[in-house]
Amino acid sequence: MSFNEQQPLRIGVVLFDGFESLDAFGPIEVFGTLTPKTKIVTLGQSPAFRPRGGPSVAVDYTFDQAPKLDLLIVPGGQGTRTLVNDQEFLDNLSALAASVPKVASVCTGSALLAKAGLLDGRKATSNKRSFQWVTTQSDKVHWVYESRWVDDGKYATSSGISAGIDLSLALVSKYFGIEQARKTAQQIEYVWNEDSTKDPFAAVNE
Amino acid sequence: MSFNEQQPLRIGVVLFDGFESLDAFGPIEVFGTLTPKTKIVTLGQSPAFRPRGGPSVAVDYTFDQAPKLDLLIVPGGQGTRTLVNDQEFLDNLSALAASVPKVASVCTGSALLAKAGLLDGRKATSNKRSFQWVTTQSDKVHWVYESRWVDDGKYATSSGISAGIDLSLALVSKYFGIEQARKTAQQIEYVWNEDSTKDPFAAVNE
Repeated sequence: MSFNEQQPLRIGVVLFDGFESLDAFGPIEVFGTLTPKTKIVTLGQSPAFRPRGGPSVAVDYTFDQAPKLDLLIVPGGQGTRTLVNDQEFLDNLSALAASVPKVASVCTGSALLAKAGLLDGRKATSNKRSFQWVTTQSDKVHWVYESRWVDDGKYATSSGISAGIDLSLALVSKYFGIEQARKTAQQIEYVWNEDSTKDPFAAVNE
Repeated sequence: MSFNEQQPLRIGVVLFDGFESLDAFGPIEVFGTLTPKTKIVTLGQSPAFRPRGGPSVAVDYTFDQAPKLDLLIVPGGQGTRTLVNDQEFLDNLSALAASVPKVASVCTGSALLAKAGLLDGRKATSNKRSFQWVTTQSDKVHWVYESRWVDDGKYATSSGISAGIDLSLALVSKYFGIEQARKTAQQIEYVWNEDSTKDPFAAVNE
């Protein structure tokens, strides 16, 4: 499938109280540079949410009113510690994920996907510093410690915070080609960690 | 001066229509991790602004109602192309900058500072792809092409988009020490470009 101005890649970013700024705004930056070949909306159960230490960010749609999406992005952050025990949120997330062909998480966003059972039988990764906590959310996931991101079929999960930028660029490559991904990395002056198996933070956090 | 929970580093982030997501949220991520030793507010002339392709972000204070700040951060983005010709905005920015001991810009944010005359006689840098446009905003600035960021007294200016994260970590080092800066970089799983003179994007954009 090819995306363009007439038929943009429709991206939904899930927001919640205590989401991590860069987990959401790294991907928003990467895909935002491709406007109007991309269209980004935010999704959540309140009109706005504050990330840790940051300003209030508006929600465009509640989960049940979400428009048709091609890609769903789930950030992590302190807020996930509460949300893994919020069955209503997990049910909403599962229902939304069921309607989207590709779902990506950043950092501890994979804890939410795992707890919702969405990663059962798949390979996945997460933030290195919270790895132990994340992996206790499900024993049905093949957790991969050393990986900048893991792309296993419908679900792609990234390592901590900035790794969401690397995963987003990999998804740009998937949807728009490797040359576009490299051009986007150059445009945002980001040194893209192009190899998903190269994880600079696996060793330091062991 | 030392900052702590009782006396946090007070940071103001300027927002405007068409600011670049990561220019603002890179620094917000870096300084946000240090909450409550930092306190971040957003400043602007409307209640909320949308970055390119991204969601609406709330403004906490208008310029003239800004609380006392220790550090002002000015992002770049497409919106700066209009704002360099908006004398009222530039006057407001100048008045605000006069009351803050340290001002940092990301990407084309330095075009705004330059046009307002705030960088006169100082060394400064900017986004590599927009460098020519930025430098035409003032011939009284000693523009430095090859530099990830330039810290010249009161004003620190960074190169494009992601470079704001590197500059922010350098400012964390200045306010909280180098060990804290390295710890923060590790926490957000970001490979910090610690050397301001090392500019990976100077050559590719020449």
